[in-house]
Amino acid sequence: MRKLLKGLHKFQSSYFPANQEIFEQLAEGQKPRVLFITCSDSRIVPHLITQSGVGELFVIRNAGNLVPPFGAANGGEGAAIEYAIHALGIEQVIICGHSNCGAMKGLLKLEKLRTEMPLVYEWLQHAESTRRLIQENYADTKGEELLAITMAENVVTQIENLKTYPVIRSKLHQNKMAIYGWIYDIETGEVLAYNPETDDFEVPQTLLANSSSDNNGHFVHTDAPPIPSAYQKTAPQTPTNNPGDLPSWMPREQADRIYRGSAR
Amino acid sequence: MRKLLKGLHKFQSSYFPANQEIFEQLAEGQKPRVLFITCSDSRIVPHLITQSGVGELFVIRNAGNLVPPFGAANGGEGAAIEYAIHALGIEQVIICGHSNCGAMKGLLKLEKLRTEMPLVYEWLQHAESTRRLIQENYADTKGEELLAITMAENVVTQIENLKTYPVIRSKLHQNKMAIYGWIYDIETGEVLAYNPETDDFEVPQTLLANSSSDNNGHFVHTDAPPIPSAYQKTAPQTPTNNPGDLPSWMPREQADRIYRGSAR
Amino acid sequence: MRKLLKGLHKFQSSYFPANQEIFEQLAEGQKPRVLFITCSDSRIVPHLITQSGVGELFVIRNAGNLVPPFGAANGGEGAAIEYAIHALGIEQVIICGHSNCGAMKGLLKLEKLRTEMPLVYEWLQHAESTRRLIQENYADTKGEELLAITMAENVVTQIENLKTYPVIRSKLHQNKMAIYGWIYDIETGEVLAYNPETDDFEVPQTLLANSSSDNNGHFVHTDAPPIPSAYQKTAPQTPTNNPGDLPSWMPREQADRIYRGSAR
Amino acid sequence: MRKLLKGLHKFQSSYFPANQEIFEQLAEGQKPRVLFITCSDSRIVPHLITQSGVGELFVIRNAGNLVPPFGAANGGEGAAIEYAIHALGIEQVIICGHSNCGAMKGLLKLEKLRTEMPLVYEWLQHAESTRRLIQENYADTKGEELLAITMAENVVTQIENLKTYPVIRSKLHQNKMAIYGWIYDIETGEVLAYNPETDDFEVPQTLLANSSSDNNGHFVHTDAPPIPSAYQKTAPQTPTNNPGDLPSWMPREQADRIYRGSAR
Repeated sequence: MRKLLKGLHKFQSSYFPANQEIFEQLAEGQKPRVLFITCSDSRIVPHLITQSGVGELFVIRNAGNLVPPFGAANGGEGAAIEYAIHALGIEQVIICGHSNCGAMKGLLKLEKLRTEMPLVYEWLQHAESTRRLIQENYADTKGEELLAITMAENVVTQIENLKTYPVIRSKLHQNKMAIYGWIYDIETGEVLAYNPETDDFEVPQTLLANSSSDNNGHFVHTDAPPIPSAYQKTAPQTPTNNPGDLPSWMPREQADRIYRGSAR
Repeated sequence: MRKLLKGLHKFQSSYFPANQEIFEQLAEGQKPRVLFITCSDSRIVPHLITQSGVGELFVIRNAGNLVPPFGAANGGEGAAIEYAIHALGIEQVIICGHSNCGAMKGLLKLEKLRTEMPLVYEWLQHAESTRRLIQENYADTKGEELLAITMAENVVTQIENLKTYPVIRSKLHQNKMAIYGWIYDIETGEVLAYNPETDDFEVPQTLLANSSSDNNGHFVHTDAPPIPSAYQKTAPQTPTNNPGDLPSWMPREQADRIYRGSAR
Repeated sequence: MRKLLKGLHKFQSSYFPANQEIFEQLAEGQKPRVLFITCSDSRIVPHLITQSGVGELFVIRNAGNLVPPFGAANGGEGAAIEYAIHALGIEQVIICGHSNCGAMKGLLKLEKLRTEMPLVYEWLQHAESTRRLIQENYADTKGEELLAITMAENVVTQIENLKTYPVIRSKLHQNKMAIYGWIYDIETGEVLAYNPETDDFEVPQTLLANSSSDNNGHFVHTDAPPIPSAYQKTAPQTPTNNPGDLPSWMPREQADRIYRGSAR
Repeated sequence: MRKLLKGLHKFQSSYFPANQEIFEQLAEGQKPRVLFITCSDSRIVPHLITQSGVGELFVIRNAGNLVPPFGAANGGEGAAIEYAIHALGIEQVIICGHSNCGAMKGLLKLEKLRTEMPLVYEWLQHAESTRRLIQENYADTKGEELLAITMAENVVTQIENLKTYPVIRSKLHQNKMAIYGWIYDIETGEVLAYNPETDDFEVPQTLLANSSSDNNGHFVHTDAPPIPSAYQKTAPQTPTNNPGDLPSWMPREQADRIYRGSAR
């Protein structure tokens, strides 16, 4: 706590004064463009990964980045989704899973949780579609590989769940809603995005297109505090992912099983 | 989305390589010290406010930073709390409300939400203790002041709700659990902490104690990636809050009504 | 039933006529001062224990004297609490547990109830905070001692739950609400009250103060029918509890574990 | 509270020592013969009305003496019923309504409660069968009379609800379960019992049969502490209800409407 308070003081004495105008402007209201749904895991920092500024991401975080189907739960997820879409007019949603996810590990040994962590057990029922898919289709897969596949498939499950919400359904009907599924690898920093046409997770296309032109460090956030601007001092390095490459965290065979295995 | 992908690329090409070791280490598991519960509002960036590094905060975010009483909801809140306390052994919880909160605005005109945003309406039932307290005790208060009071009282309500969780109750019994209530002012960057003994929100004591010695900018995060290290380039400035001062965002009279009014 | 009808006749032919005025007065409305929440157990007679008259106690009784957290159940508890506090203006609540409690016994072997008494099983989920605290902190305790500790800790759990109710929270805010936790020993007739400052159960202070002066048997209820007046015919005896003494139903060591063990 | 503590002291110093043996015996377990379900109203003291001793009545008390149909609620009622019937082997249930009932008043102006006492509002849904019956069949009845009828009909509603419980249904099948509906008049002390054959509330037959022989004041509880024995000092008086008489609290016409009106 002492450390957080030190950090708080530092924020107030350096970052805040340097960006005071932006904060004052934001005090009147928020206009985020993206609803970012991800895991509570401490290793996921959405603003860091996306180099987003204050005011840019409306964030829902829970264990396992789950979105219970409409009507299935009365927790905060539905309300935050409804508020984001209806009250704020957000038209882009990202559901972001991640490697080494504790919730997904729990899903793979669900019965053990029943007495020890009953609330987690109940909550993971909202990932039952994932669990059953894995159980019925990946009987021979194990360990790290199984966990990676489960995590990836779960993002797809939650995309489907998200589509059951009235506010989402209506916007989809108007072609005013885009839902993205991301998987983030903690160890490598890589992100793959779900491609519904191929039912694959792939290196985001825009990322590919921009990978060469963005290393100059001149990218500037114009409408939000430049949280990440400082990172430019770190010397630009060769991207760890060659465009088109597989993610480093899984061998090609495994990747094939994951991304092509669940083609519908 | 294009912007996020650019940010993602930047993260991967500069920040990540510079902190690769830390990410590799974290890939094996997380050991956060703090459960940080706050609003989905895009203007709240927990890691920025607390200058925390990757791996330090286990985060729950929903509309209004609510914690339904144990058993009252089957959303992600209970599961994430249970996982944080039981599986990760976290012993410190921060519930952080904020100024200009849309959920609290909704709470003050609840009936209007019933048909337009039914999920938000239902969700706000978990802040009914806040709503009733306000209705019965602040009949003459209005506008910004009423909203500020509502937000502050709601943090206290959610602290009470949090205490009903089995994993919390057990740890409290062992003297191994600390629950903090924070209110964050977007416009000024200030944070006040709840003091249960006085039933007041106050400038955190540690912050007061350290306010003079910490301006040197040499504070270094030792056990987590230095997300905020770059902020040091901003020249250290005089803290905006003179220790002991009232928060700038409310006149003394108002502050008195808020923070002394609810003394038990 | 025959016996009850005989009793009914007796009530009507002797007690009622002797107190007719009071009943006629009460027929217009009730003004109880205390909400008394206790177990359905047949051995608990609130009016006998407290020597209260008709019209003095608003009573909620269920198995295990549980108070589900606000929103966690839709049974009669919340409605009765709301009515007592809001409609009747009651400002004092007593939650009274007792020795040899069947519900607490059930809580200690919960799984066995799942199929045999599913409603009891479900109901006891509202004492899950108690169960988990006991499981995690009293692994070496057994038998009678464990049951006594469980019962006492459960009273504290239910006090926490009670605080989540809107009507309670609002009154607490106004300093117009007192919540007392009692544990009653069937075998000895003794009552201990929870002291939140020490996190102990203690002989009620007022009881200590009055123990010597009240043996004269002249105490008279002034504002309610003298149900217990007749008990005066029983010759006053030495109190079974010497002021300050431990309750007779547990050895000092055990008491220490119970009442000091849970200090926060 | 001071008064209760005085009462407590008195109980401990006089009543308890005089009945110590009985309490010690009861400490080992309870064997109540009757499940008594009544209102939380402070003017109802089941043990006084029935002159029952400690250990004789297993008691459920909530606002309006409601029994939600099986599966309709997850409050304490179902669990206490299940425990009483299955664990304790109780074979007699009394549901006791009473005159001037606040819950029944609320039922007659239900909409007004929706915002002011939402929990009471929700709870009274379990008396909706009563409300509708009254609305559709007693349009011309008003005031006190309407309230009395509502209360009486509600007891019948709750008897029906009680029959939906698995443990009750099974015992009824075995002819090992008797359910009694009582209505108690606070002003007169009279009790009428529901007769399903006539669909009337009547003076209990046993009471009639025993009314002459019981005035001698020699009735003694043999298997429980003689709580009411002391009342014998009140000179026996002529019973207020001549056997066969109507209850004094309603004129014959009204009684006819109540007790014959709902004949099915």
